[in-house]
Parts: sequence; structure tokens; C-alpha cells
Amino acid sequence: MAFPGYGAGPGAAPQQDPLYGYFSAVAGQDGQISADELQRCLTQSGIAGSYQPFSLDTCRLMVNMLDRDMSCTMGFQEFKELWQVLNGWRNTFVSFDRDGSGTVEDHELQQAVTSMGYRLSPQAMTCIVKRYSTNGRIRFDDFVSCCVRLRALTDQFRRRDTTQTGNASFQYDDFIQVTMSI
Amino acid sequence: MAFPGYGAGPGAAPQQDPLYGYFSAVAGQDGQISADELQRCLTQSGIAGSYQPFSLDTCRLMVNMLDRDMSCTMGFQEFKELWQVLNGWRNTFVSFDRDGSGTVEDHELQQAVTSMGYRLSPQAMTCIVKRYSTNGRIRFDDFVSCCVRLRALTDQFRRRDTTQTGNASFQYDDFIQVTMSI
Repeated sequence: MAFPGYGAGPGAAPQQDPLYGYFSAVAGQDGQISADELQRCLTQSGIAGSYQPFSLDTCRLMVNMLDRDMSCTMGFQEFKELWQVLNGWRNTFVSFDRDGSGTVEDHELQQAVTSMGYRLSPQAMTCIVKRYSTNGRIRFDDFVSCCVRLRALTDQFRRRDTTQTGNASFQYDDFIQVTMSI
Repeated sequence: MAFPGYGAGPGAAPQQDPLYGYFSAVAGQDGQISADELQRCLTQSGIAGSYQPFSLDTCRLMVNMLDRDMSCTMGFQEFKELWQVLNGWRNTFVSFDRDGSGTVEDHELQQAVTSMGYRLSPQAMTCIVKRYSTNGRIRFDDFVSCCVRLRALTDQFRRRDTTQTGNASFQYDDFIQVTMSI
């Protein structure tokens, strides 16, 4: 298992978790990290491997994705959750970046999105590719930004799709809160 | 009038429009510009003044905001429309950036959003500030990114709010198309 910390029982002290080292190195007295601290933390942890470090914008999206208490910061439990999700996305990206160029192609992004369980129309796939590709290729940072937003927006939609029919109603103000925060 | 080209009648050749110089300097044979060409074009035009040039991400949002034919590129008419909108946003930003620091404060972003005619709850304002501020301040590039998304998302919502009651229904796939492209 790549990250033995995940196997720890619920009673384990965070100090025993290897991830806690990365987290506590940047967290202030309050045990919370902001987007720029997350950026430093992820860069130091080396989770991006040989890919470029995450942009501040992507780190802000990551904080917002898990920010249930609207504090604009991330606690250790949220950080652990993010770490696990990020590892999944990195493995997916690596499996499509076969030549190790640090980018994947348009159609590979579509395959990756499908492999994560999303069922989207060709039109929706085109929108996503258009938004995240640069000259027909998608960099790791943009891939993660895409994954963060797709996950968070799908979560928010599902919460409002009370009849589970794939249809949801939004008040304007709620729609802006959901879409502008991510 | 700052941009006399706007006064030209519909029959005026684009070559007579001073904006056409900026546009044609980067547009290819097809008379269209992509996000990275728009970035170069806007940098060369000096529209950002003493502020940092627009990021590629913000330029992608600008292209998407006006991309009615889903071509991922921008023609000259769309560029002119963007120019006019951008000037309005720049003037708004400048009026709040009183000390010329290149940033505005959280509460000034809220005032700016209100001055553009949006009626949002304090919660929605908090979401927006949270998403676009860095250490409590908002840079011009982030401000424009915020304005592009707020305008495009409001437009898309309005189209689906057929009864004009501030409530709209979305199918999941449509929701993803609207929110992931901007």
C-alpha cells in the first residue's frame, strides 16, 4: 500500500501519520492551511512528481472543494481526504500520459473522465476539453483543476436532484454560490 | 469618446477601425484568434494598463464567454464586443483601486459587483470573495475572471429561467456544459 497512514484506525494520533509532517510544516497555530500554504505543502510533498507544481488557482479550488465549514482553510482531516483523491487523479493522469510529456491529449482527457465514472454527452466532453486544453493538450495542473470542479459540481447537483432523475432546480442566488465558488 | 471606432456605422470596413490593428496583428488567415493569441493581443494593446497582463486562463474564459459558435476562437466582431466590456470592467476596477496598488479589497469587490447591477446575498458575495481573493485582496486579472464568469453564468441562468421568477431547472448534462465551460 503506497500510503500506510490510511490504514491507521480512527483512534490513531495524527502525529503518527506520515502525512502529518507535510501538513504541520506549513499549518499555523490553528492547525489549518490556506490555499497558498496548500500550494507550498503539495510542492514540498512531491505529489506532483515530475509535473509542474500546482498553480495557486488550482489550490484554491482544492480548498473550496472540501471546505464544508466555509472557513477558506483546510484542516488535517480534509487534507488527508484531498491527498487520497489527488493520488487517484495522479494515477489516472500518469496512465494516460504514456510518453511522460506531462500532458495528455484531448481524447485521452475524455477517456479519463469516463474512466472516473462520469457519463457525459459528446457536447459536454467538448466543453470540458475546450476549457482545459492548450493547443490540443492538457497539463497535469489543468487536469486536476478539471477533476476538482467536475467532482464538486456533480456533488452539488446531486444534492439538489432530490428525485434522482438527473434534473435539479436552482434559485439564482444558490446557482451563483455553487458555480462561482468552484 | 475614447474609442471612436464604435461610432462607425454597420457598413464601415473593419480596416478603418483602430481596434482592427491589434486584432489583425495576431489573427491568422482565418480571421479568428485563440486564447493564447488573445492573450498576446490584449497585452500588446495595453488595455491592462499598468496592471499585470491577463493570464491564459482568463483569456480562455473570455473566448468562451463570447464563443457562440463553439469554435474555441474569437472573430473580430466578438473581439470588439469583448473590448467594450473589458473597458467597462477596467474603469470599475480603477475606480476602486484608489491607491493604484493593482488590487482591490474584499469589500470593494462586493461594491463593484453590486455597482454592475448584480443583486446577491451576503453568502453569495462571500463565496465570490473567497474564490478570487489572495490574502484579502483581489488582483485585476482575478477581477476580470470573476466578471467574465458572473456575466456568463447569469446569462445562461436567465435563458433557462423561462418564467423570470429567479428559478431554473437543469438537466445534469446541461448543467455540466454550462458550468464547466466557464
